[in-house]
Amino acid sequence: MGVNVSIPKGTRDFSPVEMSRRKYIFDTIENIFRLYGYLPIETPAMENLSTLLGKYGEEGDKLIYQIRSNKNLRDHLSKEKAAILDNIYPYWLPQKSEIGLRYDLTVPFARFVVMHQNELSFPFKRYQIQPVWRADRPQKGRYREFYQCDVDIIGSNSLINEVELIQIIVDIFQKLGLQIIIKLNNRKILSGLAEIIGEPDKMMDIAIAIDKAEKMGWDEVKEELKLKGLNENSISTLFDIFKIGDVTGRKVVPGETASEGKTILEKLAGTLEKSSTGSLGINEVSQIINLLGEIQPDIKIDFDPTLARGLDYYTGAIIEVKAKDVSMGSICGGGRYDDLTGIFGLPHVSGVGVSFGADRIYDVLDELKLFPEKTGISTQLLFVNFGKEEEKYALLALAKLRKAGICAELYPDGTRLKKQFAYADAKKIPWVAIAGTTEMTEQCFKLRDMTSGEEKKASVDEIICMIKK
Amino acid sequence: MGVNVSIPKGTRDFSPVEMSRRKYIFDTIENIFRLYGYLPIETPAMENLSTLLGKYGEEGDKLIYQIRSNKNLRDHLSKEKAAILDNIYPYWLPQKSEIGLRYDLTVPFARFVVMHQNELSFPFKRYQIQPVWRADRPQKGRYREFYQCDVDIIGSNSLINEVELIQIIVDIFQKLGLQIIIKLNNRKILSGLAEIIGEPDKMMDIAIAIDKAEKMGWDEVKEELKLKGLNENSISTLFDIFKIGDVTGRKVVPGETASEGKTILEKLAGTLEKSSTGSLGINEVSQIINLLGEIQPDIKIDFDPTLARGLDYYTGAIIEVKAKDVSMGSICGGGRYDDLTGIFGLPHVSGVGVSFGADRIYDVLDELKLFPEKTGISTQLLFVNFGKEEEKYALLALAKLRKAGICAELYPDGTRLKKQFAYADAKKIPWVAIAGTTEMTEQCFKLRDMTSGEEKKASVDEIICMIKK
Repeated sequence: MGVNVSIPKGTRDFSPVEMSRRKYIFDTIENIFRLYGYLPIETPAMENLSTLLGKYGEEGDKLIYQIRSNKNLRDHLSKEKAAILDNIYPYWLPQKSEIGLRYDLTVPFARFVVMHQNELSFPFKRYQIQPVWRADRPQKGRYREFYQCDVDIIGSNSLINEVELIQIIVDIFQKLGLQIIIKLNNRKILSGLAEIIGEPDKMMDIAIAIDKAEKMGWDEVKEELKLKGLNENSISTLFDIFKIGDVTGRKVVPGETASEGKTILEKLAGTLEKSSTGSLGINEVSQIINLLGEIQPDIKIDFDPTLARGLDYYTGAIIEVKAKDVSMGSICGGGRYDDLTGIFGLPHVSGVGVSFGADRIYDVLDELKLFPEKTGISTQLLFVNFGKEEEKYALLALAKLRKAGICAELYPDGTRLKKQFAYADAKKIPWVAIAGTTEMTEQCFKLRDMTSGEEKKASVDEIICMIKK
Repeated sequence: MGVNVSIPKGTRDFSPVEMSRRKYIFDTIENIFRLYGYLPIETPAMENLSTLLGKYGEEGDKLIYQIRSNKNLRDHLSKEKAAILDNIYPYWLPQKSEIGLRYDLTVPFARFVVMHQNELSFPFKRYQIQPVWRADRPQKGRYREFYQCDVDIIGSNSLINEVELIQIIVDIFQKLGLQIIIKLNNRKILSGLAEIIGEPDKMMDIAIAIDKAEKMGWDEVKEELKLKGLNENSISTLFDIFKIGDVTGRKVVPGETASEGKTILEKLAGTLEKSSTGSLGINEVSQIINLLGEIQPDIKIDFDPTLARGLDYYTGAIIEVKAKDVSMGSICGGGRYDDLTGIFGLPHVSGVGVSFGADRIYDVLDELKLFPEKTGISTQLLFVNFGKEEEKYALLALAKLRKAGICAELYPDGTRLKKQFAYADAKKIPWVAIAGTTEMTEQCFKLRDMTSGEEKKASVDEIICMIKK
């Protein structure tokens, strides 16, 4: 090969086998979303930078891909200025970038709701399954292009929505055969904690710091909190609180039932008694856990007061899901945001939603060998090609099979039989039909079962019957 | 509204109604692709610029969106240099762009085939349904983000592939209920014409020029050909040839049968007798028309020697489809390319394929009101919300309905009944279930048929039976 071909780091091609497995994941997720009354929307890959920037924190902004086109290159600069640029910085481009690739589906959704508020009926339940792009360093489970499957309801404060989202999570991973751990917390609890330790303005700093605990360790968290201006005393009070129950650091006992989680919750309720925001958070978590316990008592949830999630816009429940028995970041997460559309001019509309990471789910199912053996439809029958006359005979039969809804094909070239059978094998086609002069005279085909190797004569109608069975 | 929200020009949001119509188009196309033995692949939205540039002509290159990230902004320039840049050109960005958004699906497919040649079995039949991006001026039927639905077979020279692609085109538009005109030509015929008029090296210039005839008129074509260095004599010979049969300019009589097309073909065969390439082209067109005539004589094809298509890489058959009774550019097109993978280091592999423009097909179906009334699944039943106790009662019933595969939901807030019914109306939910104290005691629901307004009592199991019917 003369030329070196590759694709950008962190991106992937998907072969037919991978596509059918991905389709299995997307279909499973989509079907459950629909069962709960959510409907699909799509938004453009490109959004105005003014829509994207400032929504994901400083770190997030840096990870947004900016886009420009080559059009009008150099058109609006003098030759002299262009020459200076070429000299000191040959990579300059002539247009201010005004658009970028979407970073997630939540911010575009908020923008969508504001733009189309007069066409929508609230509460608005939507799902959205599309790729997002982040200029992040690629590593296991982290890609630069990956799919999110978001489900959100906007325009309702009811905690039923949180309960149903947890049911959706349980249903989807049950269908996929994957064991999971669901963690639940509430941003109001974190706000309450910030109050209690005497740092009421530092909730977001605390959230961002403890969100990194699992990756970096608690010592790092302490360092970061110091850097953010929290005093030693506050930090040690906070860490003491996190030791309530068996919650040491982030090490919550996995798989505890709602009632066990409640024990920790009750202890923390005492600690937060003096904070009205904190108490509200405790109350919300209790309601969710209690309602779930009544309608689906088999669902296990870990209440985890150290669960933070890094995003700015959460204000209530936060949810995170991990796969058991696999080392992989969260495969699903989300929470409630009381004013995401406010930044676009539509205040006081509360929403809540979760996002499923299809690519990580794929990797987990793959690692645990949980994909069903047959996930895709493929060609059912191949007609062997013997030459011009036989081609026409096969093409006429093909039309009948396809009319009957059977995926079938004719090998396009009259090449060696061995090659044609190898093609059927490689494509895992279960039946091969052969017709030479004899079969054409008798208006039939020799039909070969590729698994058993058995052959028998059959008319087109008989073939259709056989395959349809 | 305080903030002005918008999306980039030439891009669109899709509402649930639009999504279900789009799904109807994609499903129709995908099902036919599968019937013919094609399997799906996907490639990343971003490709290396080295993969994209130089493949679509000079005009195409300018329409490619280039991407860069903000990471390490300013990191590798001295402060002094950065200050100069800021001064004369505040829009500079710090990284050389090495990636761009894909412009079509054919070039990424060629790159895919070369990269994965050892994993594929040839001939390789793939389809690919993904968005592409072009920094073009938006206008009717032209978007900056739009979906292509490509179907290609690579590694086979057989003209059966061209025949089957035409069958695929016919099948898809028949399913969609759309009347179409299929035009067929061959690049070898254009090469032959260039030879005959004494300009053997100008085939591509001629193709690019006459491709604009419909939009710009034939006088413009003449001007462009002069600019490209063809002499007046050659041009007038060429235009005389185009008048063969009833082909005056691009005005071919639409809907002529294969046999009528053949008349023009026979006359042109005489003209091209002295060009071996031209004769080969005539021969290929004849074979395709003859084979189609034998296996599916109802298919009408317009042989049109002025059909050119602008892309560089076609070498054989070229195909274009337009909708009847609508003013809209081509809704499907493609052709054979003998060496597309050669540019990536895998020479001598011939392929042929066509691309369906889903967005234009959408616009045409919409204009002609050809969408079926019901294209999507939606919520079948809404439970009215009367408050805390009723919620639990409804949530338990909901779980049963969903287990039975019925899309159902509970209105999340215990708000005014009128509002809840308005929600059901807006979402076109056919059934509403109501349960107050009476119904809860009797373990049933009051079920309202939203079309007739009729109400009756029913248990959960009865409701499931009723909706499943």
